[in-house]
Amino acid sequence: MAKRKSLKTDPCPVARALDAIGERWSLLIVRDAFDGMRRFGEFQKSLGVAKNILADRLHTLVEEGIFTVAPASDGTAYQEYVLTPRGLDLFPVVVGLRQWSEAQLFAPGEAHSTLRQRASDLPVRKMEVLAEDGRILRAGDTVVHKVAPQ
Amino acid sequence: MAKRKSLKTDPCPVARALDAIGERWSLLIVRDAFDGMRRFGEFQKSLGVAKNILADRLHTLVEEGIFTVAPASDGTAYQEYVLTPRGLDLFPVVVGLRQWSEAQLFAPGEAHSTLRQRASDLPVRKMEVLAEDGRILRAGDTVVHKVAPQ
Repeated sequence: MAKRKSLKTDPCPVARALDAIGERWSLLIVRDAFDGMRRFGEFQKSLGVAKNILADRLHTLVEEGIFTVAPASDGTAYQEYVLTPRGLDLFPVVVGLRQWSEAQLFAPGEAHSTLRQRASDLPVRKMEVLAEDGRILRAGDTVVHKVAPQ
Repeated sequence: MAKRKSLKTDPCPVARALDAIGERWSLLIVRDAFDGMRRFGEFQKSLGVAKNILADRLHTLVEEGIFTVAPASDGTAYQEYVLTPRGLDLFPVVVGLRQWSEAQLFAPGEAHSTLRQRASDLPVRKMEVLAEDGRILRAGDTVVHKVAPQ
């Protein structure tokens, strides 16, 4: 793989986020973990990705503190990949991607998986950027304050 | 570039989203557009990415309907890349990435750019996945209903 510009110390949080989880497959592994998957073979079967690429992505996600490696919950010799608090905190990002895609990338009536509340089977609310008083904020209602260069 | 498995027709909205905007740099171009950038040279200066890669990503983002190409707003011969409604709808995704990163990838007190309301200079609310009644939903409170295979 070509050497790449690292954004790991970038003062923009969006850039630093994408340095950690912006590789192809990384967020799909996180998605699968939210769906209950824990083992290499489960991720591999779900994603259909080459084993060496999956191993690389899992290694990076562990290094980034998004997954931790744990012994198998059933006492077998397998390793399991478990989301850490840092990984679990990606839930709004994954749901935001889902909702954008549902609204923008599917034809009306086209079948897709849906996210529902476990207890009630109701859908979840559309995620929006909100002011403290609950008003919806569009991009133009906001501004980014940059950090002065060191 | 190696031929890749396309997720463009995947029934999982998260997979389809990442097929459209999951390439390295794509969401950083979108971020820059939210910050007001419109021209190739502006994106190139901001990102420090090779011109051929930037051209490829912009081409894909136009194909995906996230940007449209427009004549320069100042009457010069430049082209401008303008977010479409589909692109503007990515605002919650970019803000979700920012907030995750701010909470998880910066040391306490470490400098980073901040997102504020333009009119009031107040911060924006932390994005959460919510039920219709406003309760915060964790991943474990939800379940994905898969589509039956065709």
